[in-house]
Amino acid sequence: MYRTHTCGELRIGNIGQEVVLSGWVQKNRDLGAMTFIDLRDRYGITQLAFNIETNKELTEKARKIGREYVIQIKGFVVERYSKNSKIPTGDVEIDVKELTILNKSEVPPFTIEDNTDGGEEILMKYRYLDLRRNFLQQALMLRYKMAIEVRNYMDKEGFIDIETPFLIKSTPEGARDYVVPSRVHQGSFYALPQSPQTFKQLLMIAGFDRYYQIVKCFRDEDLRADRQPEFTQIDCEMSFVEQEDVIKTFEGLTKHLFKVFKNIEFKGDIKKMPYSEAIEKYGSDKPDLRFGVEINELTQFAKGKDFKVFEESEYIGGICLKNISDTFTRKSIDNITEFVKKPQIGATGLVWVRYNSDGTLKSSIDKFYNTDDLKKWAGVFNAQPNDIIFIVSGQKNKSLKILGELRLELARQLKLYKENDFAPLWVVDFPLLEWDDETKRFYAMHHPFTSPKNEDIELLETNPAKVRANAYDFVVNGVELGGGSIRIHDSDLQQKMFKLLGFTEEQANEQFGFLMNAFKYGAPPHGGIAFGFDRMVAIFNNSESIKDVIAFPKNNSAKDVMIESPSNISDEQLQELGLKVNLNQ
Amino acid sequence: MYRTHTCGELRIGNIGQEVVLSGWVQKNRDLGAMTFIDLRDRYGITQLAFNIETNKELTEKARKIGREYVIQIKGFVVERYSKNSKIPTGDVEIDVKELTILNKSEVPPFTIEDNTDGGEEILMKYRYLDLRRNFLQQALMLRYKMAIEVRNYMDKEGFIDIETPFLIKSTPEGARDYVVPSRVHQGSFYALPQSPQTFKQLLMIAGFDRYYQIVKCFRDEDLRADRQPEFTQIDCEMSFVEQEDVIKTFEGLTKHLFKVFKNIEFKGDIKKMPYSEAIEKYGSDKPDLRFGVEINELTQFAKGKDFKVFEESEYIGGICLKNISDTFTRKSIDNITEFVKKPQIGATGLVWVRYNSDGTLKSSIDKFYNTDDLKKWAGVFNAQPNDIIFIVSGQKNKSLKILGELRLELARQLKLYKENDFAPLWVVDFPLLEWDDETKRFYAMHHPFTSPKNEDIELLETNPAKVRANAYDFVVNGVELGGGSIRIHDSDLQQKMFKLLGFTEEQANEQFGFLMNAFKYGAPPHGGIAFGFDRMVAIFNNSESIKDVIAFPKNNSAKDVMIESPSNISDEQLQELGLKVNLNQ
Repeated sequence: MYRTHTCGELRIGNIGQEVVLSGWVQKNRDLGAMTFIDLRDRYGITQLAFNIETNKELTEKARKIGREYVIQIKGFVVERYSKNSKIPTGDVEIDVKELTILNKSEVPPFTIEDNTDGGEEILMKYRYLDLRRNFLQQALMLRYKMAIEVRNYMDKEGFIDIETPFLIKSTPEGARDYVVPSRVHQGSFYALPQSPQTFKQLLMIAGFDRYYQIVKCFRDEDLRADRQPEFTQIDCEMSFVEQEDVIKTFEGLTKHLFKVFKNIEFKGDIKKMPYSEAIEKYGSDKPDLRFGVEINELTQFAKGKDFKVFEESEYIGGICLKNISDTFTRKSIDNITEFVKKPQIGATGLVWVRYNSDGTLKSSIDKFYNTDDLKKWAGVFNAQPNDIIFIVSGQKNKSLKILGELRLELARQLKLYKENDFAPLWVVDFPLLEWDDETKRFYAMHHPFTSPKNEDIELLETNPAKVRANAYDFVVNGVELGGGSIRIHDSDLQQKMFKLLGFTEEQANEQFGFLMNAFKYGAPPHGGIAFGFDRMVAIFNNSESIKDVIAFPKNNSAKDVMIESPSNISDEQLQELGLKVNLNQ
Repeated sequence: MYRTHTCGELRIGNIGQEVVLSGWVQKNRDLGAMTFIDLRDRYGITQLAFNIETNKELTEKARKIGREYVIQIKGFVVERYSKNSKIPTGDVEIDVKELTILNKSEVPPFTIEDNTDGGEEILMKYRYLDLRRNFLQQALMLRYKMAIEVRNYMDKEGFIDIETPFLIKSTPEGARDYVVPSRVHQGSFYALPQSPQTFKQLLMIAGFDRYYQIVKCFRDEDLRADRQPEFTQIDCEMSFVEQEDVIKTFEGLTKHLFKVFKNIEFKGDIKKMPYSEAIEKYGSDKPDLRFGVEINELTQFAKGKDFKVFEESEYIGGICLKNISDTFTRKSIDNITEFVKKPQIGATGLVWVRYNSDGTLKSSIDKFYNTDDLKKWAGVFNAQPNDIIFIVSGQKNKSLKILGELRLELARQLKLYKENDFAPLWVVDFPLLEWDDETKRFYAMHHPFTSPKNEDIELLETNPAKVRANAYDFVVNGVELGGGSIRIHDSDLQQKMFKLLGFTEEQANEQFGFLMNAFKYGAPPHGGIAFGFDRMVAIFNNSESIKDVIAFPKNNSAKDVMIESPSNISDEQLQELGLKVNLNQ
């Protein structure tokens, strides 16, 4: 038996007991007469004491033990002289009688402490050592506990966890699939699921009524901080529901999680905001509502004054930052102007209006607009002395997007929110379709199975861009944590949708024939939602990147640098699969 | 709102209430004055009543509704005239006032009843309809409930669920990998995990102490009844443990499951049997202990009588079946002889000895053996009048395997066990290595990370075939439900193992360098186990095939005939991946 107790377990009540502990050496302090080792495991740290007077040989052995050695000791629990109130075991230490080195450790490539000296690359390569750090141990523990709470809630609500297949079928709609070549059927491929979407719908048709799964999904996309090639979803579907039923159920789930993990109680219904309002007011379909700073339109007030840039703009709008004019320097304005002009933001310039503390107004376009003009603008924003208004103009959607990014960046710089602020909302009434100018066709804004609102169905023929969907996103602090919809359950309507999306009847049948066929045998009305579990844990963990809450993440070029994957496979494997590598030039 | 209650919910206490129900039409009976519809959902069946006298129009509408239509009704709960005690809702029915057809259904391709008329192929193609059958609904519900119990037990025991990656690295050791071509790194491939083996070991090195996961794994093998290309494991690992600790922990889990789901309590320790005993007595490393019929060796008693077949045999052994001689006809003997001569069993013949009820003995080789000889044999088996002994001879391992198969087949034919008999055991002391005559090298019997028994380590140099492993399998009713081992945690020993398995140092480093490297930084002693969750549920569900407990299984050629996968992918996809299809001739 390697241990009688863990390193987090012993208390004053254990004094006098003989115990066996095993763990890692966190620290080794040689104080001359005494040598102390901090012994660590997942459960905590226990101090081991060695006395050179009473046991010279053992103490000398202990002194030689390096960091991260794995040792086993036997000894008696004694009261400490100087107690450590910072750790739960801080009242006691072990008077060690026997010491066994279970495994040595080379000096780790970085220090395994809360504040490590390792860079990202080395931490990723030695992820198994990085995972020893308290920060990541806690993050994965939080992830586990959140999963438990999710499962308990779902069970209580009558959902059952049903596993759906991973080797499915590639479809060109949506993001890029990872594919898996078949050996038995050479030249054919499986695809890894981007989500279990069609399977969960089939489970509703099969009558399972309420399904959920915490499940890995896969997307072969170029990566960002909150994207990984493989990610985890809380995937859910319900039968005989309308949008309100789904929202109510999962609002319950998220409230439960906030209560348990953040001790925050959201009273009443969580705010619902139509997509159009989110875009108009926040320049984003996932607005961060931890702060105000709403966008206001100035088009009607700012035109007709010979300022060419505005005259040529479809849209003029801005945001007002309160109480910053005195401290927001010319240099700060230059910096934020540079920010919006970055290619990924895409503004051509930024107009500002200072409402000075003395009541005067000053703008970057004083040549064209006098104080009365600027006063009118200030009125739109309800601006007060010491505020600054930033204005962007151009094509409407683009300008709103720029203002949205500007709003987020300024809030970040000006610290308009605190670490434990959480502002959840539902964004609703999404458009069903998005027009793509390049390919000259509509794309499904969510996916092709999303149902249009009943009252908009007629518009499918006449003005598809105006059709609103029974779709909803759950947003917290500007992050889309979940999204879902009421699905189409009628094969005729589904066929119509595929047609709108440019599928020929043959293509639709080849790819989704099984689903349209299934609709013919009594499909119930159904809908669901999927939450990004990695993102959700990251939000609750106050982490910027989902890598913090994934045990073995890939890097930004989809590599696992620890195991060095992807890698070559043998010619024999390729031949068995009927494949040849044919690198692009 | 689609419903106020489910179809399994209403009782005598609900009489008088106005309710709304939604569900599927299970049956529609037109009895002239009255029309009755059985409305079904996951929760049960509720009878709907339509009276032609009181509501002609509605009743006529109801009469036209076919099987599997999805309908919604509003009405009042009333007491039934003739109650149905077989269903929980059988005391009441709904006096329907409003009826809405939510979705029509074509006539299903097979009847959705417990005893369906559909063949395997059509059932697989319309799996979403097959899943409506009570049998599969119950099977998936059992699966879900078992998963919950597993999770609760593991949580109680301090295990934490940590997700490991699916896009990992292909290794030639073990079964064939499914691979995933990388687009970003053309010509390179990920592999889907056959198990999270190395990752769970890294998690132990990272100090997570106790890990588990219910996780999909993948093997590109040719399929059998209890194999699927993707399957689910309960994967577990523990630090600071010896074999006994792991066995104790998971014996607890399995006992818990038997108690909860079968109301069977196994008192005391579950039987442990060394591998060598399992082979000698049962001709299998996963013996079915629901019945005795042990193999006994006759080599020393049967040689020296000029019977050439026996004289040339390394081994002669048999099994004795009790109390069947009077009823086991000559034809039955011919049939069982045919059975053992099938190529997949591989016997060249079968010798029998009848101990007749009158006390005489009669064998198929009376020419060579007299009654005294046969009496000696009977003594070995402790045979009595009315028993039959079946004897096989030849190469030892092969003969034992044949006797093992014969034993199982006779037990099946003679019904030597009942449906709810369960005989669990641990098979222990496996050999570490298996010699392969074809490739002239050793293979790891479990996997290359399994540790040898301490007392056998010296044999690694001198007689590797004799080295026993710290490995254990959990077997129930002749099915291997789980297997595991104490792992190597020392990089030198691991290197030695790779060498024994014919890896060059370079190959070992390329494929498992990260693991051997990890061992250098304080790897704790650790070990674990993995249970085949599909098989486990199948055993508890009394199912022959794991397909019965998987929502969307593949067929025996690894195809999903419902979604028609695997399938072609576009030339564009292939090009992006830097691949060309190159079918073998």
